[in-house]
Amino acid sequence: MKTIKAEIITIGDEILYGQITDTNTQFISQIIASIGIKTIRKSSVGDIENDILRILFEASQRVDLIILTGGLGPTKDDITKHTLCKFFEDNLQIHEPTLKHVTSFFEKRGREMLEVNKQQAAVPSKAKVLFNDVGTAPGLWIEKNKIIYISLPGVPYEMKYLMEERVLPQLKIQFETPHILHKMIHTSGLGESFLAEKIKDWENNLPKHIKLAYLPSLGIVKLRLTAIFENEKVAQQDIEKQVLALEKLISPYIFGYDENSKLQQVIGQLLQKNNQTIAVAESCTGGKISHLITQISGSSNYFKGSIVAYSNQIKIQELGVSESNIYQYGAVSEPVIVQMAKGIRKKFNTDFSIATSGIAGPNGGNSEKPVGTVWIAVDSEKETKTHQFTFGNLRENNIELGSIYALKMLFDVLY
Amino acid sequence: MKTIKAEIITIGDEILYGQITDTNTQFISQIIASIGIKTIRKSSVGDIENDILRILFEASQRVDLIILTGGLGPTKDDITKHTLCKFFEDNLQIHEPTLKHVTSFFEKRGREMLEVNKQQAAVPSKAKVLFNDVGTAPGLWIEKNKIIYISLPGVPYEMKYLMEERVLPQLKIQFETPHILHKMIHTSGLGESFLAEKIKDWENNLPKHIKLAYLPSLGIVKLRLTAIFENEKVAQQDIEKQVLALEKLISPYIFGYDENSKLQQVIGQLLQKNNQTIAVAESCTGGKISHLITQISGSSNYFKGSIVAYSNQIKIQELGVSESNIYQYGAVSEPVIVQMAKGIRKKFNTDFSIATSGIAGPNGGNSEKPVGTVWIAVDSEKETKTHQFTFGNLRENNIELGSIYALKMLFDVLY
Repeated sequence: MKTIKAEIITIGDEILYGQITDTNTQFISQIIASIGIKTIRKSSVGDIENDILRILFEASQRVDLIILTGGLGPTKDDITKHTLCKFFEDNLQIHEPTLKHVTSFFEKRGREMLEVNKQQAAVPSKAKVLFNDVGTAPGLWIEKNKIIYISLPGVPYEMKYLMEERVLPQLKIQFETPHILHKMIHTSGLGESFLAEKIKDWENNLPKHIKLAYLPSLGIVKLRLTAIFENEKVAQQDIEKQVLALEKLISPYIFGYDENSKLQQVIGQLLQKNNQTIAVAESCTGGKISHLITQISGSSNYFKGSIVAYSNQIKIQELGVSESNIYQYGAVSEPVIVQMAKGIRKKFNTDFSIATSGIAGPNGGNSEKPVGTVWIAVDSEKETKTHQFTFGNLRENNIELGSIYALKMLFDVLY
Repeated sequence: MKTIKAEIITIGDEILYGQITDTNTQFISQIIASIGIKTIRKSSVGDIENDILRILFEASQRVDLIILTGGLGPTKDDITKHTLCKFFEDNLQIHEPTLKHVTSFFEKRGREMLEVNKQQAAVPSKAKVLFNDVGTAPGLWIEKNKIIYISLPGVPYEMKYLMEERVLPQLKIQFETPHILHKMIHTSGLGESFLAEKIKDWENNLPKHIKLAYLPSLGIVKLRLTAIFENEKVAQQDIEKQVLALEKLISPYIFGYDENSKLQQVIGQLLQKNNQTIAVAESCTGGKISHLITQISGSSNYFKGSIVAYSNQIKIQELGVSESNIYQYGAVSEPVIVQMAKGIRKKFNTDFSIATSGIAGPNGGNSEKPVGTVWIAVDSEKETKTHQFTFGNLRENNIELGSIYALKMLFDVLY
């Protein structure tokens, strides 16, 4: 079966000059990938007719589906519609249902309707209108030489609405799209290159219809398996078989599988399942671990709270760290994080606790304890696990990595 | 003077398929705009040699500067370097200083170095190496037919480091860029459209050579004034004059001016200047405020610590909130945050304290206190300020907005 290729084009100076973050193209490529349409290029151009005409021509040489967003607004720098008319040798005409919609839209809000607003109902005569219930700019669907051109407003929620309600159903009808199956494997504790080394042979022996992608971020590497298939059941089995083989190689580093499983989500599910609770004592991570845990809706069911003990005084006063330990070993030491972990767990009366103490930098390091040195402890009734990490020189990354590895240590204890 | 045109190209399936959000191109277009280089197109292609070769050729027909990010990693699907060799009819050779750097990078972390890691030091022989102190993949600078090709790693902090430390200084030397003066005004507490309404007349009367840009993010709107000039002194005066006029209109919302002044930085400077200290009691913000404060190097000079009191039990036990208040008014109420703020300030013995309690959502709201309701208190010897906010339905945004507005309330007290 032929793969349907798509190109996504955003139109607008504000994206080109970096004044706003473009989230539209990510959404569009994800949603069309879900029906097996492959985005082969994304582009952004400014509100300039020649640039838009040029990229439309280029894209029409490459793909079966072109999705444009932006430039459909009422202001004078919104030139997409006129440019489409030029490209298709077409002209604008008022689309009555849309005009009705726009008119009532303004009436409802008791706002006067200007000529520019009326013009929102003007569309290229050859275009099929994608009715926009949530805004005033309609989407457009134009076909020429077997290529589908779709033009959508740039306002994210309007674009999403039209993609989900108008575009996707129509695309499913139009194209006989291949079936695609994704499986995400979330890992932590091993860098991308070490992971790649460990699974090299497995990767090289993957069947042709299964592809592997590495998606690394700080402290985390996601592995994405993608299967293109005729028969879903078979593909499911093929992927499961590969995942089993993969687990044999790197199971200690795997902490989750589905699309959006974050460490803090998986941990939350485990704690909740066992009716267990947690508290955190943070020094160098400064509240980041608590923030990650409480990102998860429902975390109040297992997270009682934290103490961010940034000063030694607070470590001593609130967590029962002994002054002599700080004096003898320093605040960034195993004896101190053990006291921090035990102290917070006792004080907040929880099943588990995490403690961190380190040198986030850029200052405060020395030859014996360089910037990036982070001690982490995970405490429970049963045991106290500790580990010393040495990260890099960037404060932001040391905080992030300390937090993620602390959660991974907790996961290993819970799992 | 001729405008320098640039094209930014991201390489990698993970962006193309929408697996990760691309923030690199936004950063790059912003930073090159600051020296007057105009981005005329942004593109993303996958890890496919022919697609990369094709877009390199296309871009070389259009622009003076091509900046690539991504595909420099150690794994099999990172093919940028080999593709550049093909494009420039070049071959890879080991760059000794980089190899030394990579080797010590691994030694420092006590990790074994693999062949794939060694290969990170292999660069096209015609390339000038942009030394990467913060990672293992060097940046590359290649010139051909008066066009500059720059290839950077896709890891955001490595890309940023190389752009700021290596690329920008070199670009300033290479190109005779127009003289540009920027002035950033940081505001919080007023939405973009309301801000625009307040300064409408001022904006319309800006002189031709001064441009205004709105850079909105959650809870913050940055206003960037850009002057293109012949005479720096005059331009400086022109901008200062406009800033003075602007301050008359929106001074209560302005909290900072220079390029990277974040709320938590400005607050830190004020506290340090006055030898004052702060502690935080967080409920709904769950550690985010503490995290923001401790992002700043040197925050240990004024930040003693926090208690994240996520459960009512902890609010009562650690912060001295009265059970009757929670029972009578609920945990999300003015009496409770006042007790939280006073409790933490007394306990940690600081000059100032912040307390937050709210309903982050998506659950837990009711008609009287909908999701997004957040109470914030700022306490000091002199006074206790409280404010109730009503944000939206998105948990993530409510946490972020609660944290930023809490810092803004502290700033207003400090300033």
